[in-house]
Amino acid sequence: MTHASHHLTLADIARHLGVTFEGDAALPIRGLATLKEATSDQVAFLTNRAYLKDLATTQAAAVLLHPEHGKSCPVPKLEMENPYLGYAKLSQLFDPLPARDKAGIHPTAVVADSVTLGEGVSIQAHAVVEAGVTLGDHVVVGAGSVVGADSVIGENTRLHANVTVCHGVIIGKRVILQSGCVIGGDGFGFAHDGEGWHKIAQLGGVVLGDNVEVGSCSSIDRGALGDTLIGDDVKIDSQVQIAHNVTIGAHSALAGCVGIAGSTKVGKHCMLGGGVGLSGHLTICDGVQVTGMSLVTNSIHTPGVYSSGTGAMSNSQWRKNAVRFKQLDDIAKRLSRLEKTTRDA
Amino acid sequence: MTHASHHLTLADIARHLGVTFEGDAALPIRGLATLKEATSDQVAFLTNRAYLKDLATTQAAAVLLHPEHGKSCPVPKLEMENPYLGYAKLSQLFDPLPARDKAGIHPTAVVADSVTLGEGVSIQAHAVVEAGVTLGDHVVVGAGSVVGADSVIGENTRLHANVTVCHGVIIGKRVILQSGCVIGGDGFGFAHDGEGWHKIAQLGGVVLGDNVEVGSCSSIDRGALGDTLIGDDVKIDSQVQIAHNVTIGAHSALAGCVGIAGSTKVGKHCMLGGGVGLSGHLTICDGVQVTGMSLVTNSIHTPGVYSSGTGAMSNSQWRKNAVRFKQLDDIAKRLSRLEKTTRDA
Amino acid sequence: MTHASHHLTLADIARHLGVTFEGDAALPIRGLATLKEATSDQVAFLTNRAYLKDLATTQAAAVLLHPEHGKSCPVPKLEMENPYLGYAKLSQLFDPLPARDKAGIHPTAVVADSVTLGEGVSIQAHAVVEAGVTLGDHVVVGAGSVVGADSVIGENTRLHANVTVCHGVIIGKRVILQSGCVIGGDGFGFAHDGEGWHKIAQLGGVVLGDNVEVGSCSSIDRGALGDTLIGDDVKIDSQVQIAHNVTIGAHSALAGCVGIAGSTKVGKHCMLGGGVGLSGHLTICDGVQVTGMSLVTNSIHTPGVYSSGTGAMSNSQWRKNAVRFKQLDDIAKRLSRLEKTTRDA
Repeated sequence: MTHASHHLTLADIARHLGVTFEGDAALPIRGLATLKEATSDQVAFLTNRAYLKDLATTQAAAVLLHPEHGKSCPVPKLEMENPYLGYAKLSQLFDPLPARDKAGIHPTAVVADSVTLGEGVSIQAHAVVEAGVTLGDHVVVGAGSVVGADSVIGENTRLHANVTVCHGVIIGKRVILQSGCVIGGDGFGFAHDGEGWHKIAQLGGVVLGDNVEVGSCSSIDRGALGDTLIGDDVKIDSQVQIAHNVTIGAHSALAGCVGIAGSTKVGKHCMLGGGVGLSGHLTICDGVQVTGMSLVTNSIHTPGVYSSGTGAMSNSQWRKNAVRFKQLDDIAKRLSRLEKTTRDA
Repeated sequence: MTHASHHLTLADIARHLGVTFEGDAALPIRGLATLKEATSDQVAFLTNRAYLKDLATTQAAAVLLHPEHGKSCPVPKLEMENPYLGYAKLSQLFDPLPARDKAGIHPTAVVADSVTLGEGVSIQAHAVVEAGVTLGDHVVVGAGSVVGADSVIGENTRLHANVTVCHGVIIGKRVILQSGCVIGGDGFGFAHDGEGWHKIAQLGGVVLGDNVEVGSCSSIDRGALGDTLIGDDVKIDSQVQIAHNVTIGAHSALAGCVGIAGSTKVGKHCMLGGGVGLSGHLTICDGVQVTGMSLVTNSIHTPGVYSSGTGAMSNSQWRKNAVRFKQLDDIAKRLSRLEKTTRDA
Repeated sequence: MTHASHHLTLADIARHLGVTFEGDAALPIRGLATLKEATSDQVAFLTNRAYLKDLATTQAAAVLLHPEHGKSCPVPKLEMENPYLGYAKLSQLFDPLPARDKAGIHPTAVVADSVTLGEGVSIQAHAVVEAGVTLGDHVVVGAGSVVGADSVIGENTRLHANVTVCHGVIIGKRVILQSGCVIGGDGFGFAHDGEGWHKIAQLGGVVLGDNVEVGSCSSIDRGALGDTLIGDDVKIDSQVQIAHNVTIGAHSALAGCVGIAGSTKVGKHCMLGGGVGLSGHLTICDGVQVTGMSLVTNSIHTPGVYSSGTGAMSNSQWRKNAVRFKQLDDIAKRLSRLEKTTRDA
């Protein structure tokens, strides 16, 4: 379901991308689609060679592509060095949400007296904004979301529905929090007295930089004393757990189901694949990529790609091999002995 | 805690299952229990041979079982080829929720003017139903749940409390959404410009078929252009992440903590164990089972059972073996050399 | 961000810990900090030898430490055998939340007529408390939280914002439920009729003991017939999934992203690392520790530390070794043959 936006022409599209084109400037453009599915009022894009085969027969109004493919394009072309970036920029034009945001406070929202509100703030039905909160200009607080006492939210940040920002959390500008995420729940800290646990009150906060995104149902816990720190332009997918006092450097991206234990520091421009786990108190340098479902138990000081685990195979094949894993040390020792025997023979 | 339902007799139970029985038709039945724990007003069931030992001494009012065990049953018996299915059918009779649903809109619910409501809809306290939504007959929107603009929800579907259905989502009939789940949060899509990330607006939706269930705190993200598609009768447990543009075929079941990356297609009648991860852009054919916590990085074209990883062992044993994993390639090469040496000798 | 509490002196601190000290009893103490960052109105602590180097130069008002380090302390000292426990106790004094709780029912909260409320209960904005619920003295129900019908919540328990407690759930005293968690969603139970799934109504409940904590966005599912049972003083981190009819023994701790499948029994004083998965129907004895991201598929009857998996390495190194994993059984057999050949030679 691609939403229509009624007042855009092909010329608007090209202007938005900063490119020139040959074709009907007034052609109405109502959305984006793949080369194969695009109709005559949609713009398509070629960002992956696997779809080059669909270019010749596309019905799109125009195609966004790299200049190297321009000659093969049967319809008006929008050439860019990075057509995927162009696609990202165009996609924003067709997002139906901003047009729906109404500035103002819904009559059912509960907003404390001591709150500081910027211009054009939208606080939707049943949202709660507690005492001492500051909301920057054009902040959107979605239906059912709660912003805890003394939190500060920068301009143009959007909380979708049913988001929870706990007390004393600092959130930058242009941040997007998807539904169900929780920013600033207590970190997991307890002291043991020999018999049971005593809770350590989590007195730190969470600081999210500008342009951060947090996926649905993800958790970023508040620090024990200092803050949990998420740098600018960090992108966090759904179902992610970030424990107390973790630091994530700018521009890093964390895919779904990642879990990072307490006090670990992840550098800038890192990419963690889905389901990756990082132990606590590690340092991961800038520019590290970790492939899906890997477990990292030691610090990493060299940029590069890291992995663990093994891919799936048929269960019958796996059973035979997995049982041998428990014999690995024995196998290695027997091999060494045999090498020695053979050498000595 | 098994909830009592006051007006059922043993005859009602048998009629509901479509079976005959010998015994007191008027016996009141107030619930279900295991063979061991059932009292004289509860029906028990035998669905697993491990519990056959409890049959002779059961105090149950009647027992649901396979005909092969009928002779050993000391109380009235309800014989079915698939007693587990019978148990499922009976369990519905004792669910206390439907009796509590009051049709109508709670005075604190916020329902937009442009909403289309079927008959007998129940919209509970503090729920929010945004503009353009259609709710089919007997839909229940639980307390604090939010249904985003233009979404369509089919008849007899239930949203438990604090569910979020984002805008433009299509949900079938008799769907059950557990508390805290989010249907239609943005997919995780960004283009990189060499320095940082540009968000790709997620313009697709989510389509859930009929009879789907989604567990608590699970996320099903909306598509980038096309829709994320969940087939009829797909059952999804708690804490599951389904990324944008994933397709799940009818009757598949996903256990807790499963994560599926973008654009992967899972066939019909598949079963994914707890914590399984599927990489993006894969195709998994019909009838595939993947055991718990396996990582699937390649498409699967043959039905069957697949696995990866290794089971836990004592940490001391594990340390010795895990360190050898890093030497595996070396071990394999040394073995080949030794075989050659020995053969040549 | 460490919150200030204005009326505490050094003498108050020492009295709270039950220790004596030499120094200015009237010194105002406004918070806690690390040895390195503490200022003259903050108490620091030494609980880890790695930070002993910061002791000599600390600017703290006083330091909480073990008597063995007392001599090296340049400022007033608060000596305890377990300074980490002392830190936990002090941290509670600086938690800003309790001072903010206002007893009473917010005008926007929806509380059914048939609810039983203890003294000093705080029900915050847009919270919903359904029919038949009992809330003990000083229970806090955070903004947007929902307590389902007939649930019982013990005294001094706190539900943060946007928590969901489903119907018929029993929660002990002094329990803390972080935002977004769901207690009592349906367990994942379906019977197959050869073509598709039939839901098994989940008729059991959940029972949480006293002093339990559940992290943000975690799920504890209700039992199929009997209850899911979480013992006293069990600590559960964020993003955890506990399936139906699981039992967790007292004082056990589960780190983030743990998943436990149905009917598994975990003993007392167990510790499960982040991302650990336990298969269903297992028995794990008291005193078991499982390291991060391990998969446990068999019952464990001996206390100790258990592990599975392998840690991350460079992707190039990993590729070579992981491919050999699929040859492991073959490698083992070839080694055995070679040993036989060599022995026979």
